[in-house]
Amino acid sequence: MTKGVETREKILEKSAELFNQHGYDGCSLNDIMDATGLQKGGIYNHFKNKEEIAVEAFDFSMQKVIRRFRNRLDKVSTSWEKLVSVIETIGSFAYDPVILGGCPMFNTAVNSMNTHPALKKRAQEGLNMLIRYVEIKLEQGVESGEFKKVDDLTGLASMIISTVEGGVIMSRVYEDDKFVKQAEEFMIGHLSNVLK
Amino acid sequence: MTKGVETREKILEKSAELFNQHGYDGCSLNDIMDATGLQKGGIYNHFKNKEEIAVEAFDFSMQKVIRRFRNRLDKVSTSWEKLVSVIETIGSFAYDPVILGGCPMFNTAVNSMNTHPALKKRAQEGLNMLIRYVEIKLEQGVESGEFKKVDDLTGLASMIISTVEGGVIMSRVYEDDKFVKQAEEFMIGHLSNVLK
Repeated sequence: MTKGVETREKILEKSAELFNQHGYDGCSLNDIMDATGLQKGGIYNHFKNKEEIAVEAFDFSMQKVIRRFRNRLDKVSTSWEKLVSVIETIGSFAYDPVILGGCPMFNTAVNSMNTHPALKKRAQEGLNMLIRYVEIKLEQGVESGEFKKVDDLTGLASMIISTVEGGVIMSRVYEDDKFVKQAEEFMIGHLSNVLK
Repeated sequence: MTKGVETREKILEKSAELFNQHGYDGCSLNDIMDATGLQKGGIYNHFKNKEEIAVEAFDFSMQKVIRRFRNRLDKVSTSWEKLVSVIETIGSFAYDPVILGGCPMFNTAVNSMNTHPALKKRAQEGLNMLIRYVEIKLEQGVESGEFKKVDDLTGLASMIISTVEGGVIMSRVYEDDKFVKQAEEFMIGHLSNVLK
């Protein structure tokens, strides 16, 4: 990496952590300067404004999210194992987050909901991608005959995500893994009934 | 109400809406002045600082949350109807919020998680109360013989809340009720299997 690319990456990495922990409005340019050890000019060399940093920091977080899914799902082979792995990967955002502060998609969604349309759109796109990713795992299992046929796979995919993400938030509020573990178990039990 | 009490209520009502939509850091004293039409001094007559406003605004929102539960649950009589009503009431925070911006407990929890301990504590206490409220409905149903015996009623209560709240957030991200409706239906189906 050239020096410029390295600096850019460092800004994104630190900003992603700050925004994911404190929200867009809870993180100032001064916070980013402190965390990176850069001056204002050093940051504005790479980004137009704070919104641009936040949007690209979200993309940076999503790359980490995608990498975690790939790494974990590559280790297993059946559609059932992949589905369980998807659920445990979403759950891991509570107790072993890819970016400090929990799940960047749900955090960004809640934090930007009424105020930052560009970020909200990004969070929606991230969730769209995740829903489609889970849906494909379900489709593959149905096509191979490993899973029973189910009517609304998109609905099931979004239900899996929303249930486990609810658990992620509860676990972070209480700083106790038991809520997300319970949500994972609950969802795996349900899918076992519906798909097997 | 005396004039002073009225002003205080107005500040809390407007602040509750602002904080619930924009988070603690996304809402400034200027925003509260604009929304209430009051001067700085008029606000600081009643509150020490922004944190005190936010904490009391959260309590104000919780009163509205509690009132909605009571109003809805008073209309039904069996434990099953009460449980369904609890689920639909949590779901209603997405499409008919008591305070603009969605569920004040989950929003406050996400927005204050890493930055505002006093608010985070309030969000935890609000959720504790809700978990206990749902647990009591479950206990009453078991005691009267309307529900089957279940091992971990506290766990089931928190699972109900986390699942429907996950749906509330998805619905608000996508501005589409279908996610929370799906979560409600899913949870009611599960409880029907487990309790009936």
